[in-house]
Amino acid sequence: MKKQLTLAPIRTAPGPWGEEDIRRMPTRGFQKMLGIVLDEVTKERITAHINIEDHHINSAGAVHGGVLISLADSLGAMGALQNLGPMHVTSTLESKTNFVRPCVSESISGECQPLHVGRRTSVWYTVVRNERGLICAHIWQTQIHSDPNS
Amino acid sequence: MKKQLTLAPIRTAPGPWGEEDIRRMPTRGFQKMLGIVLDEVTKERITAHINIEDHHINSAGAVHGGVLISLADSLGAMGALQNLGPMHVTSTLESKTNFVRPCVSESISGECQPLHVGRRTSVWYTVVRNERGLICAHIWQTQIHSDPNS
Amino acid sequence: MKKQLTLAPIRTAPGPWGEEDIRRMPTRGFQKMLGIVLDEVTKERITAHINIEDHHINSAGAVHGGVLISLADSLGAMGALQNLGPMHVTSTLESKTNFVRPCVSESISGECQPLHVGRRTSVWYTVVRNERGLICAHIWQTQIHSDPNS
Amino acid sequence: MKKQLTLAPIRTAPGPWGEEDIRRMPTRGFQKMLGIVLDEVTKERITAHINIEDHHINSAGAVHGGVLISLADSLGAMGALQNLGPMHVTSTLESKTNFVRPCVSESISGECQPLHVGRRTSVWYTVVRNERGLICAHIWQTQIHSDPNS
Repeated sequence: MKKQLTLAPIRTAPGPWGEEDIRRMPTRGFQKMLGIVLDEVTKERITAHINIEDHHINSAGAVHGGVLISLADSLGAMGALQNLGPMHVTSTLESKTNFVRPCVSESISGECQPLHVGRRTSVWYTVVRNERGLICAHIWQTQIHSDPNS
Repeated sequence: MKKQLTLAPIRTAPGPWGEEDIRRMPTRGFQKMLGIVLDEVTKERITAHINIEDHHINSAGAVHGGVLISLADSLGAMGALQNLGPMHVTSTLESKTNFVRPCVSESISGECQPLHVGRRTSVWYTVVRNERGLICAHIWQTQIHSDPNS
Repeated sequence: MKKQLTLAPIRTAPGPWGEEDIRRMPTRGFQKMLGIVLDEVTKERITAHINIEDHHINSAGAVHGGVLISLADSLGAMGALQNLGPMHVTSTLESKTNFVRPCVSESISGECQPLHVGRRTSVWYTVVRNERGLICAHIWQTQIHSDPNS
Repeated sequence: MKKQLTLAPIRTAPGPWGEEDIRRMPTRGFQKMLGIVLDEVTKERITAHINIEDHHINSAGAVHGGVLISLADSLGAMGALQNLGPMHVTSTLESKTNFVRPCVSESISGECQPLHVGRRTSVWYTVVRNERGLICAHIWQTQIHSDPNS
């Protein structure tokens, strides 16, 4: 028998999300499993951290690259959601990561800022650091903003 | 008190990994949390699937993009590990994703193949599909192969 | 005194371009300087070649990476232009290149095909080969399709 | 009869390039055809501009995206060349561009800085601006540093 998924969208109405909407995002689903803890939430800057546990580790004993990218992907979406036009929703169109240091750390932090906020797209840049503040990964992503009714 | 991580690397010796090494990778850590189930494992093709549960879901009710990228990142590493020179280890240098369809599905599958296998680097291409076989994401990644003693 | 640029757009009307429009593109501007010679032009496949001269060479004596990317960028745009909706124009949103072999060759060829053709975006994949048919670069690019009046 | 290419490499010896070597790069080949004029050249920052002429223009009447990427590709290589180890040479492994504004301008400028300088790789970030100083494109690229004799 098929498993019935129970997670509905947090919000389906178009238009910009407020801080309260954003802060509900890590309370469930994949963001909760990742253990994302939101720190700062503004339209121009979103920061968060994750306390690393065994279930974040890769086969080399470091934090799995997918954890770093997933953190960034989540923060970039939060950035775009806060900057939508009144009739728009957003989804991630593409993302790019450069890993510059193996991430062996008891916690990681992500800092996300916009490189571009346009009407139809926005571009977000997230730096992920280890507990010593050294950069482990640079992640850039493009969000498309579109009117679901057009 | 600090949490003591208990996950050691699956293998630290340089050189190419065999299928048995590879099949141990999803038994622990982040790959286990993702629920990666390996299907085919060869030097030229690695396939896997994930049965989607609530903890894979994003705030729009679809599979979180980070799940798709993390699956691909894992498969690309498996490809590189099987193709290393005798004194080499590998890590992911960079990756790029294009999302082409929202992923609402009870399972996803990933199929990973090499675009280039050189001595110092390899490039891997993973397609992630929904349960109907439709492509949700294209992911490309570069693995660097290096001698830890040089 | 400012130099007066004399190159107007080839076409400003929205909607899909036909083969005749496409074949005018390499007759002027940067595509002409690159020496792009179009071979096949269809909605699903565009191929072209460039005969390499001194002005394509980089400081290592190979074809400059920018020539390979510029060829791909041109072909991807040609692909998108042929697949536009009636009220749409297109521009390149982003592109990604992996170089896998130094390109020392008297000619290069590019072969471009779609990975995805949607209403709002399309994704194009170009392979650039040397005269022996060996792949030198893989290039992927996203085109945005938008209505200039909305 | 085959055209005989006459451009030898500017320098083949491994090891870091000095400013004088770098400033010879735009005097010939593709960099000359692009019209790259070097401004600042240091190990941590390279800036340049191009005066736009008809042969830089695309089919929409703007500067061709390939010109912007080619400028960045050139500057990133100049950055890596200055930061090589004594036995190393470099080549571009991959690059990524986000276009954020159509580039209609009588000149463009590029500013390139390192995001990471390691032993085996370096990552460079170039911003290309129009004559008003507005950003048209963000370009990131990875250079591999390798010993040709190992």
